Amino acid sequence: MLLSLIYLIAISAEAMTGALSAGRRRMDLFGVVIIACVTALGGGSLRDIVLGHYPLGWVKHPEYLGFTICAALIATWVARWMHHFRRTFLVLDGLGLICFTLIGCAVARDAGHAAPIVLISGMLTGAFGGVLRDVLCNEVPLIFQKELYAVITLFTGAAYLGLLELGVSINAATLWCLGGGFLLRLLAIHFKWEMPKFVYRDEVH
Amino acid sequence: MLLSLIYLIAISAEAMTGALSAGRRRMDLFGVVIIACVTALGGGSLRDIVLGHYPLGWVKHPEYLGFTICAALIATWVARWMHHFRRTFLVLDGLGLICFTLIGCAVARDAGHAAPIVLISGMLTGAFGGVLRDVLCNEVPLIFQKELYAVITLFTGAAYLGLLELGVSINAATLWCLGGGFLLRLLAIHFKWEMPKFVYRDEVH
Amino acid sequence: MLLSLIYLIAISAEAMTGALSAGRRRMDLFGVVIIACVTALGGGSLRDIVLGHYPLGWVKHPEYLGFTICAALIATWVARWMHHFRRTFLVLDGLGLICFTLIGCAVARDAGHAAPIVLISGMLTGAFGGVLRDVLCNEVPLIFQKELYAVITLFTGAAYLGLLELGVSINAATLWCLGGGFLLRLLAIHFKWEMPKFVYRDEVH
Repeated sequence: MLLSLIYLIAISAEAMTGALSAGRRRMDLFGVVIIACVTALGGGSLRDIVLGHYPLGWVKHPEYLGFTICAALIATWVARWMHHFRRTFLVLDGLGLICFTLIGCAVARDAGHAAPIVLISGMLTGAFGGVLRDVLCNEVPLIFQKELYAVITLFTGAAYLGLLELGVSINAATLWCLGGGFLLRLLAIHFKWEMPKFVYRDEVH
Repeated sequence: MLLSLIYLIAISAEAMTGALSAGRRRMDLFGVVIIACVTALGGGSLRDIVLGHYPLGWVKHPEYLGFTICAALIATWVARWMHHFRRTFLVLDGLGLICFTLIGCAVARDAGHAAPIVLISGMLTGAFGGVLRDVLCNEVPLIFQKELYAVITLFTGAAYLGLLELGVSINAATLWCLGGGFLLRLLAIHFKWEMPKFVYRDEVH
Repeated sequence: MLLSLIYLIAISAEAMTGALSAGRRRMDLFGVVIIACVTALGGGSLRDIVLGHYPLGWVKHPEYLGFTICAALIATWVARWMHHFRRTFLVLDGLGLICFTLIGCAVARDAGHAAPIVLISGMLTGAFGGVLRDVLCNEVPLIFQKELYAVITLFTGAAYLGLLELGVSINAATLWCLGGGFLLRLLAIHFKWEMPKFVYRDEVH
């Protein structure tokens, strides 16, 4: 199935962003591999823990772990040429974001959850691997400050639910949302779309 | 029921403290909403995950999410006048702390856990939303350093268990502990009561 | 049973490292106790949550909490003489690392998980209490940067599984791995063995 192939590309791309983050904090190879696994598989794990959906994906399919570990080690090796692939990399990361989101939505919908929980499940799966990565690297999570990223998971999830509601088949809805969400992310990167920032200075606490 | 009403006030107050924390880190509106939800609902979620108590509260009642999101957006809007309400705000936050604590104790007690676990369940529910908020905002959790805050959850939980043990009805015990814990928090704010600090300098590691 | 005794020594030693970390961040006694409990019991809790293995160890045996709390309070009291015991302390911490790892491997193996999950269960149990401690203290986790520490959990777990596969009894395998892993950790400390570091500077994100 197409989504499975994209899923493998997605966890590889996410593992590589994790490995590079770890490299920026001068971690050793063990830290690199852990951060890569958390980035690639942490969002889905968090979703499964929040929804009580056991066993976690990688516990059931340990081969995903092998995949992310290989991707992380390759990233440390090709890092010196990484700036040449910057664009490719952003594109793969965007594809991963949407793919993770749709998987997260499908998991929650199959478990019979209400629409808001389906959207949150998509968001947790798509965007929270990066949040866990940033927490472990001791940084304020990027997705809370950067251009449109996590919000796209909500749009994608809403479109997915809407299409299914309209009677579109699951495969068609998945493909449309994959294309649409991915396009939205590319546009957000290209035009540097941002959410309004909220800046608060007074020390109320 | 009274506790339900106070619970809604509590998650609103906690959502607002979360939103202001996010504003101090210059997050975008998405980040503000996420931090607000984590602050308001994260303590109870952590409790439910630790106790294996599924589904989580907001997964069962997604309307709580709507509530916290509204409170967060209102906070960004009234932030400029927030310093006028500083006192109101601290009072609501204190009320929320005690209300969360009593809910946490009741959940663990109903599940048949031993007294120490009931106290910890109250503490996780009452104080750990703020810990998760601080971790995501990349700060050392305030409650580990500030005046009497989290310790009050333990006193409140112990009083609750003690009253029930003495044969007091659940409703009466809840009201007494709500009043007593709240008063204790107000006194702690007013007199700046603090736990002794432990300062360690030598680099043993 | 020997492992139980070593387990109590291990959670005490880990609680003490947690308490000292908290002291370095000028936390109050409440923060010290929380960080100590998270350091000592957080790895096993994370493992149980990831594997869906309820109830968590300390929820079933609240006496472990009493143990870690006492160890934390003792640590604040003897902290001024701590540098005299630096070596003893590192040794106990190393013993704890291996003991936790073997317990984590045994739990996952008893639950029928595949070999990679057994290794990860050992690693989470052995090394992630320290990761949670560092996240709560707002530091980049030490084990991602320091000398051979977490990797030893993988070697120990692999040796444990290998010996069981060869028909060695569980008790014998546990003892051999306890001794071997502990020796490896002492050698790593003595010779300052390190994993290769991955340093990445270019801002690809």
